[in-house]
Amino acid sequence: MKILFENAIVYTGEKLLKNAFLAVNGTKIAYVGDTRPEGCFDRVINGKGKVVLPGLVNAHTHLSMTLLRGVSDTTNLQSWLFDNIFPIEAKMTPPMKKVGALLGMAEGIACGTTAFSDMYAGAVGISEAARDAGIKLNISRGTTEFSDHFDPTKNNDAIEYVELFRDWHGFDNGRIRVDSSIHAEYTSNPDTWEYMVKLSRDHHAIMHLHLSETEKEHREGIERRGKTPAQAFAEYGVFDVPVLAAHSVWAEPEDLVWIKKSGGAVAHNPISNLKLGSGVFDSAAALRMGVTVALGTDGTASNNNLDLFEEMKSAVLLSHIRAGMENAISAEDALKMATVGGAVAQGRSDECGVIREGFDADLAVVDFDRPHLMPCHDVISNLVYAARGSDVCMTMVRGKILYENGEYLTIDMERLNYDLANVLDELFPGKNTRL
Amino acid sequence: MKILFENAIVYTGEKLLKNAFLAVNGTKIAYVGDTRPEGCFDRVINGKGKVVLPGLVNAHTHLSMTLLRGVSDTTNLQSWLFDNIFPIEAKMTPPMKKVGALLGMAEGIACGTTAFSDMYAGAVGISEAARDAGIKLNISRGTTEFSDHFDPTKNNDAIEYVELFRDWHGFDNGRIRVDSSIHAEYTSNPDTWEYMVKLSRDHHAIMHLHLSETEKEHREGIERRGKTPAQAFAEYGVFDVPVLAAHSVWAEPEDLVWIKKSGGAVAHNPISNLKLGSGVFDSAAALRMGVTVALGTDGTASNNNLDLFEEMKSAVLLSHIRAGMENAISAEDALKMATVGGAVAQGRSDECGVIREGFDADLAVVDFDRPHLMPCHDVISNLVYAARGSDVCMTMVRGKILYENGEYLTIDMERLNYDLANVLDELFPGKNTRL
Repeated sequence: MKILFENAIVYTGEKLLKNAFLAVNGTKIAYVGDTRPEGCFDRVINGKGKVVLPGLVNAHTHLSMTLLRGVSDTTNLQSWLFDNIFPIEAKMTPPMKKVGALLGMAEGIACGTTAFSDMYAGAVGISEAARDAGIKLNISRGTTEFSDHFDPTKNNDAIEYVELFRDWHGFDNGRIRVDSSIHAEYTSNPDTWEYMVKLSRDHHAIMHLHLSETEKEHREGIERRGKTPAQAFAEYGVFDVPVLAAHSVWAEPEDLVWIKKSGGAVAHNPISNLKLGSGVFDSAAALRMGVTVALGTDGTASNNNLDLFEEMKSAVLLSHIRAGMENAISAEDALKMATVGGAVAQGRSDECGVIREGFDADLAVVDFDRPHLMPCHDVISNLVYAARGSDVCMTMVRGKILYENGEYLTIDMERLNYDLANVLDELFPGKNTRL
Repeated sequence: MKILFENAIVYTGEKLLKNAFLAVNGTKIAYVGDTRPEGCFDRVINGKGKVVLPGLVNAHTHLSMTLLRGVSDTTNLQSWLFDNIFPIEAKMTPPMKKVGALLGMAEGIACGTTAFSDMYAGAVGISEAARDAGIKLNISRGTTEFSDHFDPTKNNDAIEYVELFRDWHGFDNGRIRVDSSIHAEYTSNPDTWEYMVKLSRDHHAIMHLHLSETEKEHREGIERRGKTPAQAFAEYGVFDVPVLAAHSVWAEPEDLVWIKKSGGAVAHNPISNLKLGSGVFDSAAALRMGVTVALGTDGTASNNNLDLFEEMKSAVLLSHIRAGMENAISAEDALKMATVGGAVAQGRSDECGVIREGFDADLAVVDFDRPHLMPCHDVISNLVYAARGSDVCMTMVRGKILYENGEYLTIDMERLNYDLANVLDELFPGKNTRL
């Protein structure tokens, strides 16, 4: 399929082109520039009033938790997790998790998201959902080990990882990849870390982990090991592989240096961190240090949606008060976090994250023909400060349109609604969770 | 026109009704409850999957500034205002301001907004726009006086106020009202204040003013007068009339007591205050003191949209870090700020702000049949944390539908687009401000 966008605004990730042409040939971007490329196209899309972006990357989420949207809105992470979330999660079966993940993917796709980095027990169901939905997925299972010993033949996470790497790592030419994972410093031990590092090395996989999300976690980690969680990880070689460090709200400058050296990224989740009362990550300081910052929504149970446009706006607005300085980060900084930053976080910066010839045609198209996007003095300002996820009119992954003008082309929404009703009835018997 | 919503979720402002019936007769709410009212209806609306709310009130904005959306995104209020905004505003004619206001109203109406409190020079044009758009408007002109003397026959604001009160105060049975106004402590003098208080008294009008928006303004006010701006106002009787105090980020507890005593409200603008680096108003402390808090977007030039759903979510999320405590305010607190709090701020709490028999039928209907609003464990949680302005499917003012499923019924959008193009060409010659 050859598709041509003509007379569009294109933000390539590096520059803003007006009245531009963008050609897609099969799965790849064949041309981007200001003259009409020669040749025939199966479809020509009038880009008038539309802005084409690199697809947005949600670099940290737990898609199956979409089933738990709004279950608990307390700001205390510990109480939220142990009193409210864990008891329900214990009842979630793998097929339920697949349905929850597909619902989350549907939501994200409608907001221009082309790739997710997910961490969850039940990773196989989430991978199956991504296979069906056509999106890119870096899947991981947050490995925990609460005993003193780590035995990969007995740890459920390690056992599932065997299947994950075998069946899903590199699936569909790498559309789905598996990330190695340590859930967090406080939920595992050094044996676990060394095992997960080995998995990363063996499979050339990213290491996705939670890092210093709350002050309590960070402080108790220091009390426990005499060093920060990141420093403790470093001692066991965790940063010898590219680390995707979610949150990092309380990470210290030397911790960020480790992330930078690893070739990985921080997944900044500004809304979830506020909602759970964890604080605000100092993204301005991280960018000044040359650390790659990506954006994540975290799960809907602590957000409560998957709209990266909200995250971009929040990231900029919060940066100023967090850094205590004017213009701490810019709108374009946030847009880069959600695109190229995410691609780095997924180890995909050689295939997507920017609009460039030869790269995958992973695109989000935003319709500016709406009152709240007029006038347009500054395209990037309107994208970050005025637009919403609902302004996305098309989402494309590897040249395949997944969503256009409210219609899903890969997800059967009728079937999903039916499955969702059944799952909710089973998980929350007697409660009406559908309007 | 008699309209019946059946089987809807209705949040009355006081409680949440499921499978409820809501009848509108002419301009008023005729019934709300759980049994079907008798009688014939011109239209019966199936409320399945929909949530009906009191219409949202945008308690502080500058609608004509919609023309300036994204013109400058610096976080420094002084530089933003003096270097970027004022020079363009100086070129804006009254007809331009009307077009800008109508664009802002179109945006707000599509997000469920039924009433605005606006402060701007060019108030007549904004009033004309509200007359045409069918929304409720409290209009004011932020009165300034930079000389030592205030002569109401020479001050442009005072001169316009004569016309405003004559032509617009009480227009269409009070759909449009005029608020008296002092722009701010630092832009006027006590003579001005006393004159504006007299106007408020004479016309039973709200006093709309900017209060302690930035630390600098608050501190310099204290240096200038030996007391806070609010205390200085109090000395001249400003709080003898109901005061709508925009921002109040740096207002002190005793300042808030004055607002409470006046019977007025704070207009909390969380996003604008972050964007201009002003800080975060402590809404939790204000609510504990019994101060009415309403929500505003401020102008789009410092936001950059007019979506009160974003303000509600931001208000809750920021309250926790501002107050330094868990669960500082709740989602329902924010929903009340945007509805009944706004009605108090406008002096309209006897006519709207809640859904109650005999009150004006000012309604916003939210469509929950969307992936990001599923499941629905908690209606108010989904409204505040997961919904966006674009989920509004109907906006009604006094029983008249202004907007439904993307269509405007009072605003001619084709004409508005045409007028907007002309205004932008004139105001920004040679610049392409339309995609």
